[in-house]
Amino acid sequence: MELSLILAAVAAVAFALIQGMDVRRIQITDPRITEIGGYIHAGAMAYLGRQYRVLVVFVAVLAAIITFTPGLGLSTALAFVLGALFSVVAGFCGMKAATAANMRTAQAAGQGQAQAFRAAFSGGSVMGLMVVGLGALGIGIVYLLNPGNLGILTGFSLGASSIALFCRVGGGIYTKAADVGADLVGKVEAGIPEDDPRNPAVIADNVGDNVGDVAGMGSDLFESYVGCIVSALLLAVAWGGTTALPYVLGLVAAGILSSMLGILVVSLVKTKDAQLTLNLGTYLSSILLVADAFLLGGLLPEGDGTRAFAAVVSGIAAGLLIGKLTETYTSDQYKAVKEIAGACTTGAATNILTGLSYGMLSTAWPILVLAGATLASYAFCGTFGIALAAVGMLATVGMVISVDAYGPVADNAGGIAEMSGQPDSVREITDHLDSVGNTTAAIGKGFSIGSAALTALALFASYALAVELTVIDILNPRVMAGLLIGGMLSFLFSALTISSVSRAANKMIDEVRRQFREFPGIMAGTQKPDYAKCVDISTQAAIREMILPGVIAIASPIAVGLLLGKEALAGLLAGATVTGVLMAVMMANAGGAWDNAKKYIEGGSGGGKGSEAHKAAVIGDTVGDPLKDTAGPSINILIKLMSMVALVFAPLFL
Amino acid sequence: MELSLILAAVAAVAFALIQGMDVRRIQITDPRITEIGGYIHAGAMAYLGRQYRVLVVFVAVLAAIITFTPGLGLSTALAFVLGALFSVVAGFCGMKAATAANMRTAQAAGQGQAQAFRAAFSGGSVMGLMVVGLGALGIGIVYLLNPGNLGILTGFSLGASSIALFCRVGGGIYTKAADVGADLVGKVEAGIPEDDPRNPAVIADNVGDNVGDVAGMGSDLFESYVGCIVSALLLAVAWGGTTALPYVLGLVAAGILSSMLGILVVSLVKTKDAQLTLNLGTYLSSILLVADAFLLGGLLPEGDGTRAFAAVVSGIAAGLLIGKLTETYTSDQYKAVKEIAGACTTGAATNILTGLSYGMLSTAWPILVLAGATLASYAFCGTFGIALAAVGMLATVGMVISVDAYGPVADNAGGIAEMSGQPDSVREITDHLDSVGNTTAAIGKGFSIGSAALTALALFASYALAVELTVIDILNPRVMAGLLIGGMLSFLFSALTISSVSRAANKMIDEVRRQFREFPGIMAGTQKPDYAKCVDISTQAAIREMILPGVIAIASPIAVGLLLGKEALAGLLAGATVTGVLMAVMMANAGGAWDNAKKYIEGGSGGGKGSEAHKAAVIGDTVGDPLKDTAGPSINILIKLMSMVALVFAPLFL
Repeated sequence: MELSLILAAVAAVAFALIQGMDVRRIQITDPRITEIGGYIHAGAMAYLGRQYRVLVVFVAVLAAIITFTPGLGLSTALAFVLGALFSVVAGFCGMKAATAANMRTAQAAGQGQAQAFRAAFSGGSVMGLMVVGLGALGIGIVYLLNPGNLGILTGFSLGASSIALFCRVGGGIYTKAADVGADLVGKVEAGIPEDDPRNPAVIADNVGDNVGDVAGMGSDLFESYVGCIVSALLLAVAWGGTTALPYVLGLVAAGILSSMLGILVVSLVKTKDAQLTLNLGTYLSSILLVADAFLLGGLLPEGDGTRAFAAVVSGIAAGLLIGKLTETYTSDQYKAVKEIAGACTTGAATNILTGLSYGMLSTAWPILVLAGATLASYAFCGTFGIALAAVGMLATVGMVISVDAYGPVADNAGGIAEMSGQPDSVREITDHLDSVGNTTAAIGKGFSIGSAALTALALFASYALAVELTVIDILNPRVMAGLLIGGMLSFLFSALTISSVSRAANKMIDEVRRQFREFPGIMAGTQKPDYAKCVDISTQAAIREMILPGVIAIASPIAVGLLLGKEALAGLLAGATVTGVLMAVMMANAGGAWDNAKKYIEGGSGGGKGSEAHKAAVIGDTVGDPLKDTAGPSINILIKLMSMVALVFAPLFL
Repeated sequence: MELSLILAAVAAVAFALIQGMDVRRIQITDPRITEIGGYIHAGAMAYLGRQYRVLVVFVAVLAAIITFTPGLGLSTALAFVLGALFSVVAGFCGMKAATAANMRTAQAAGQGQAQAFRAAFSGGSVMGLMVVGLGALGIGIVYLLNPGNLGILTGFSLGASSIALFCRVGGGIYTKAADVGADLVGKVEAGIPEDDPRNPAVIADNVGDNVGDVAGMGSDLFESYVGCIVSALLLAVAWGGTTALPYVLGLVAAGILSSMLGILVVSLVKTKDAQLTLNLGTYLSSILLVADAFLLGGLLPEGDGTRAFAAVVSGIAAGLLIGKLTETYTSDQYKAVKEIAGACTTGAATNILTGLSYGMLSTAWPILVLAGATLASYAFCGTFGIALAAVGMLATVGMVISVDAYGPVADNAGGIAEMSGQPDSVREITDHLDSVGNTTAAIGKGFSIGSAALTALALFASYALAVELTVIDILNPRVMAGLLIGGMLSFLFSALTISSVSRAANKMIDEVRRQFREFPGIMAGTQKPDYAKCVDISTQAAIREMILPGVIAIASPIAVGLLLGKEALAGLLAGATVTGVLMAVMMANAGGAWDNAKKYIEGGSGGGKGSEAHKAAVIGDTVGDPLKDTAGPSINILIKLMSMVALVFAPLFL
């Protein structure tokens, strides 16, 4: 079955290349599009280049530590390097495709919506296909080369986690610093519209969409994807012996093929309704996976196959449910966003309070669904069932990422259209495609939180297995202390990432103000602003601000494990997962709701643009931005990474 | 030893009566003070009256349920009624004294600061003495009447918890609805100063200080006090057999006497420096308790005495440390508040983000201290040690509450002085006394969160004992599901209380606007506003809005225990405690920091009153108010009450 997996993975990578070429076939005839798109591309590559230099050092140091840690060794270190490398390559290809597709989407929008949609989706699908292709390929290779030694796979998974830390946290800081800087000085102080080429931070802002929403999101889901597969393999043996391994590998292969079919359908089917097309592909790939999961049950002994199938389905069902629930708290079709928009009429304070309160409230149902999925999947196949539920949720992640990455490409295309002075009809098309992307992205966020939680639970169970803990007793005060410390780390990590955004945004504000002050020609339109300087500020800030949270995420589990023992570390992981999921859901939904409440008011409700209510709504949106795009997603990384670190360094705590 | 306890308790009640008489000796010569003070007194009594009517029904229903629950019965039900009754009586006497002392403090301030200070402190000390007196008296009576049956004490403790739910949650909603209504319409819209008698909500606002900060806080600590003593008694037997019981009873008696001495010193010592006097009393009572705890060790076998002493000291040390740490995040002497004030210059959004981020950050050290205290006290005496640490923290709570209740009395006195047109010198004295109270109150808040956490942990251990759980295994998916649900309940409870404040405040805003609109004579000063109507709105809203969170707090543990079993319920309690403590610390500190950042700006920094920075600071303060005064304190209740419900209804889950 490992060969089928590798074949499916290679097919996904090949399909990614085809999709990338499909995008590049579009001729760009407008030189202004080439120029603006070129700035964004160059900025994105500059960021990646700088990040890679730091990454090389980081990976080398951690690889050395792994090599010389008793119980680990060179093979694990090599797997670690491979995991990091594959994640980087997936991110690089995804970013290259996205920054090629944004210009071409803007160009294609001149011919019509169908053409623009296809360009944007093909561009986004490269990231989706590369993540599943390289993730599965890496697992397949390490699996083949180390027969009978599944532990080495954790090295590969840790590599993926490390890159996710850099890309998600750094990307989140980058994109919000640029966004806040561009908005506060450009839109609010100088009074120029969004995406105006006179704004020195405008290119950094557009680069940020790629860095955060494409590369950051991709690396996050690469980590979840690899993490849940590896933990499923580790727990499979404990559940059903080695005969359970082919089931997991087959399921992953089936997920890749399902995603590819879904992507193919979206790329080829020509409907007028972009939302319908995306939904079609998403549901199709899920249905195919369910069918495959059922058929693959034949690989297992009588009865086990049905139970494994049930565990997979519970994961898929939970993912879809959490996505739907997310929508009810963040879409302006429902009560929450309308009430938050209403609260804006009594000022910013009531807006913030209503949003916070709805954000907290919105944790209730998703957590109950998650608890239900945990209980159900465990009832079917024990801890292996939890891992299977996570794999079920993530097997079709190739499709999910394609849709997720399509959004920022469409958003960028709109920016390029604006800056290059395209006619209004072009901007209308890109705006529409962007808004379709927003709805699916919100659902995708719920999905990625749910899958991160299940993955963390599966990794937690794998850790217990690795350190030979058969009981983790809360009545043991070390476990309780660990729970407290783990919960606290979620709060600490959020605090650090939020304040990083503030610091970075302040630097950006100063720079934009300086350019406007020193070069009056910029506002007059006679002088080009220094885009590169703003890109540089975001880049530097993102990389510098990432270090402290990163060190905490990696060092805390090791320190607690060494000082207080493996039970305390288990408590830490459980505490961080429970509190982290709650914080992530709250921040994602409050942020999303504030964002859409602002748009709802801009649509004319409560006084429309420029009214007092709108000002209050803008404050809510500004508060929500770093919560939903930096702190929230970073917590997803934190809980998975800490579990991964604990799992890899398990030999130290025995 | 139970007789010493009862004697000490009776002495405390007697001392409370003397302190109350001491206050009433002050003659009020200014009829305007009598009039304004009378409104506040009448409003407070109206609220209590209405609340008692609901309480009677609630207590009767729950008592009936307890009587007919298998394994419980009439004795537990009677203990429950007694616990509720004693908490109500303590709250009633404390409120009566506070509403008598506020007028007399305003009157005495005409003669000088020392006289005013003594009046305010004596008034506050009635609440402190009644809480420890009646709490200990009740435990002593139930203990004496039910020899050998400690389980019945949980009934008394549940009675205390139920009243705390009503007083703390209802009081928190009451006070913030009135506060926001008075501020937003009076100060912001009509432009009249704080405590202006033309503001229809001004009396409700002052009543709110008593209802929330005196009665609510008192009932909260009454619950913690009783809860930790009861759990210490339950765990004592498991640790050292019945010989350990006298140690606990003696420690409580010693704590009462230490508090009485501390209060006596503050009342009699005449220094110019009010802060110094309060600190003197607080430290004196702590030192006395430490000495007593050491001497009482003689009651225990060799070695055990020292270990018990060490556990007590670890609790006291943790309490003082957490208080100090709270100060560094909420006092304008330190970096956090200054930075938050600085962030106000770039607008409300950056103020909110900086405050949220510092609030989250401020959880780190207190949680580490709490984890350390848990590990240390457990190392000394097992789970009994954790309960002893909580008792150590809370034994001198008579002194702590006296200082805490002194603050709102001084605050009220300032309001009365303003409304009755006293000379500026009087207002200066009351303002100074109020500001001294604020600093100690912030420390007291950290103290009450820390003690709630340790009490909850001790109750958690008692629950495990009661349902015969020797292991609570996180690898059991029911425990993990319980952890998730428990954590979520903290978020849900906060969401509900915050939105309750919003709804109640909106009603108040409408009413104040209506009065200004329909009776123009109010603003002209020719017509009296309808204070009673505003008092009524707050009262009704507080009582109605309390029901849903109350039902959730009581029903969730029972439902989870019955549906998912006692392991899941244990997980729920642990999850709620861990996440609840974090949320409570974050909300208390963020709210306190926003409050003081606003005052810092009002002191002239960043542009002073009326500047853009001040407007941003006011928004932060308004957001922080319900967090620190309603949602945060309510979570303290939630985690203790749910543990208490689980403990009392333990026979159902066996």
